[in-house]
Amino acid sequence: MPSGREITPEAERILGHVNGDRLWQRHMELARFGARSDGGVDRQALSAEEIEARAHLIGIARARGFGVATDPAGNLFFRLQGREPHLPPVLSGSHMDSQPTGGRFDGIYGVLAAFEVLEAIRDAGHTPRRSIEAVAWMNEEGSRFAPGMMGSEAFAGVRPLDEILGVRDADGVSVATALAAVNSAFPDVPLRELGQPIEAYVEAHIEQGPVLEAEGRVVGAVTGIQGKQTYRVTVTGEEAHAGTKPMAERRDALIAASAMVQRLHAIARSTAEDLMLTFGRFTVSPNAPSVVPAKVVFSIDLRHFDTGLMQGFGAAIPDLCAELAGGCGVVVEPLVDAPSLVFPEALRDRIRDIAAVLGHPVMDLASAAGHDARHLHAIAPTAMIFIPCHQGISHHPTERAEPEHLHAGTRVLAALLTELAG
Amino acid sequence: MPSGREITPEAERILGHVNGDRLWQRHMELARFGARSDGGVDRQALSAEEIEARAHLIGIARARGFGVATDPAGNLFFRLQGREPHLPPVLSGSHMDSQPTGGRFDGIYGVLAAFEVLEAIRDAGHTPRRSIEAVAWMNEEGSRFAPGMMGSEAFAGVRPLDEILGVRDADGVSVATALAAVNSAFPDVPLRELGQPIEAYVEAHIEQGPVLEAEGRVVGAVTGIQGKQTYRVTVTGEEAHAGTKPMAERRDALIAASAMVQRLHAIARSTAEDLMLTFGRFTVSPNAPSVVPAKVVFSIDLRHFDTGLMQGFGAAIPDLCAELAGGCGVVVEPLVDAPSLVFPEALRDRIRDIAAVLGHPVMDLASAAGHDARHLHAIAPTAMIFIPCHQGISHHPTERAEPEHLHAGTRVLAALLTELAG
Repeated sequence: MPSGREITPEAERILGHVNGDRLWQRHMELARFGARSDGGVDRQALSAEEIEARAHLIGIARARGFGVATDPAGNLFFRLQGREPHLPPVLSGSHMDSQPTGGRFDGIYGVLAAFEVLEAIRDAGHTPRRSIEAVAWMNEEGSRFAPGMMGSEAFAGVRPLDEILGVRDADGVSVATALAAVNSAFPDVPLRELGQPIEAYVEAHIEQGPVLEAEGRVVGAVTGIQGKQTYRVTVTGEEAHAGTKPMAERRDALIAASAMVQRLHAIARSTAEDLMLTFGRFTVSPNAPSVVPAKVVFSIDLRHFDTGLMQGFGAAIPDLCAELAGGCGVVVEPLVDAPSLVFPEALRDRIRDIAAVLGHPVMDLASAAGHDARHLHAIAPTAMIFIPCHQGISHHPTERAEPEHLHAGTRVLAALLTELAG
Repeated sequence: MPSGREITPEAERILGHVNGDRLWQRHMELARFGARSDGGVDRQALSAEEIEARAHLIGIARARGFGVATDPAGNLFFRLQGREPHLPPVLSGSHMDSQPTGGRFDGIYGVLAAFEVLEAIRDAGHTPRRSIEAVAWMNEEGSRFAPGMMGSEAFAGVRPLDEILGVRDADGVSVATALAAVNSAFPDVPLRELGQPIEAYVEAHIEQGPVLEAEGRVVGAVTGIQGKQTYRVTVTGEEAHAGTKPMAERRDALIAASAMVQRLHAIARSTAEDLMLTFGRFTVSPNAPSVVPAKVVFSIDLRHFDTGLMQGFGAAIPDLCAELAGGCGVVVEPLVDAPSLVFPEALRDRIRDIAAVLGHPVMDLASAAGHDARHLHAIAPTAMIFIPCHQGISHHPTERAEPEHLHAGTRVLAALLTELAG
């Protein structure tokens, strides 16, 4: 891998074939599968809409002579065969599933950028030493089957496949059943074994935050991913008549739960400006206007780049909730505890140098959102490339990225993958 | 009507026929219609279960020679004909619908107590001057069709029948459609005109509060019903990613709404010990763990015996909510505004005197819950008789009243109705 402010002649030649129009066109084509009437995308993992999107890309891949394969976790691979096919490939991609109120760039950009690199290399008539594969990981979002990042977790051996296959959606459909439907739609796509040695993994993604746009940069060399903890809090009070139960005798689960939310929020705000705390789910029972709430179940999503700070805050949650329970019972269940991680400096430096050579304003930037790269980081040298996201709005139908930014990020990706593949 | 601590010889004779065993048996029979596996009752207004309950009582009424009639609002009347049938009757009853997680006494006790009085008078071979009617008002609870007290509102002319008939349940079924199903189940029950002059109205009911039990009293002479206001508050923020949206830039509808709940609750508690404030419904959108809440809709149920105090608190709600909106939009919609009311002293005094003569410990007591009597009070002299409710638990499957208390309340009711009928 070259260092400093230069790129290889192969990379130089391939960059001339990275086609911004084709890349934008692919994004617009893919946005049709699961299109919402408001311009957004609702393409749930392993759904009929995702099957259509898979079929579309598989068709193009075959026309271009790329290998196509899937694995027992439903991950989808497109392969540009290298000169030494027995060597571990260089892998790049992201996911094609979306949030229910999703946009046209989150996830799919990383898949299409890697795919564009394969096409550019093919167009340039180049054959790298190592194979390069574009991948679409199964169910990153976790909106149909919770929690997300299932495909990359299974690939990296973080979570047993059997456990993932048994997860059910809100209609009771299991991952196993949904996956069987996907596989039966593509009887001629070969199934490979789960997991494989890889040389490196690079994921391109929209930032999903406002920093690059605010700083006037086009490329982010991602330093790492902030840590994340999640909890489920169950507050149990007593159902009672809104007109007759004396206030002093009530065990009102909503009053207790909203006090917890307010106190935790206030402490978080005074702890650190960038300590992220979200109560996204908050469900009240029986939820009737004239009945004192008997139960509230709410979620806590806690994120920070300093793992110690995050874990310290998290450790204080049970006692704080107990203090504010006011006669109610309260149970705090920890769900996810993912420390923050730092990607290898060598790859990150190279992204910065390539961007500089290509004339794309670049900066180091941490990822506030989780990505499949978290799990690949555990098994191979891993990097992420961010591009700007309009006003930082993501997971929303109005999510927007500029064609020239999609192009710039893909150029940096193309140069890096070409170097990594040799 | 006699005064002081005596009762008429007719009333004395009839009291000997008020049958506590029969009354208890009727309660257990009725609890079968809509029985829940936990021992409670789920008998929604105009449902199949309520049709069964109506059929059961109509069968007994016919066997006893009582008149049966209904009206365009679905109220059901049982009539013991008086010697002067053209005179306005004395009316007594309550409702037979329940909350979804209801008990075996709320509402149905008032219907069965009045029915028992008709049976006792018939058993005594007495014919009063005025007719006496037992009534089951349509949809008091408002859990299937909201808001409740529809039958008594229509009877009293408080709300136009057309408006009531158009209300739909969660499945889109209108009151008109549900009522047609009830009427078609009883083709031989005559339909009388809506509303009629009445001599007086007396409603027996479980207290739904803990006061009688705590004070060791068996009968409550109800002084009035506390005022009630309800509001719907809609807080509109902005959906955002839980990991990437900076805290300082969020417009988090849950943080704003929970601040409103906490502040209003604190102010209420410092305003008056008996100011009742309940946030029974609290619904968050999109309600996903990793998404900053975009919208919260919550209900406010506010009650107090001092109408001015209640209305003063209510009037301050919009400004308080606006103060705490923190960048979110907030709309406060007033729904119900019912002042507190005081029942006529003469009837209340008579309940106290009769109870004393019969040896049932009695006390004056205000009703914290709303009742159909609210609307009857607007058109005729009205009274309510309370009996104890175990631990004040109501609107719950474990709701409990003692057989001897059901009996005692019905004895007082029998004496009062006999006197009123002459």
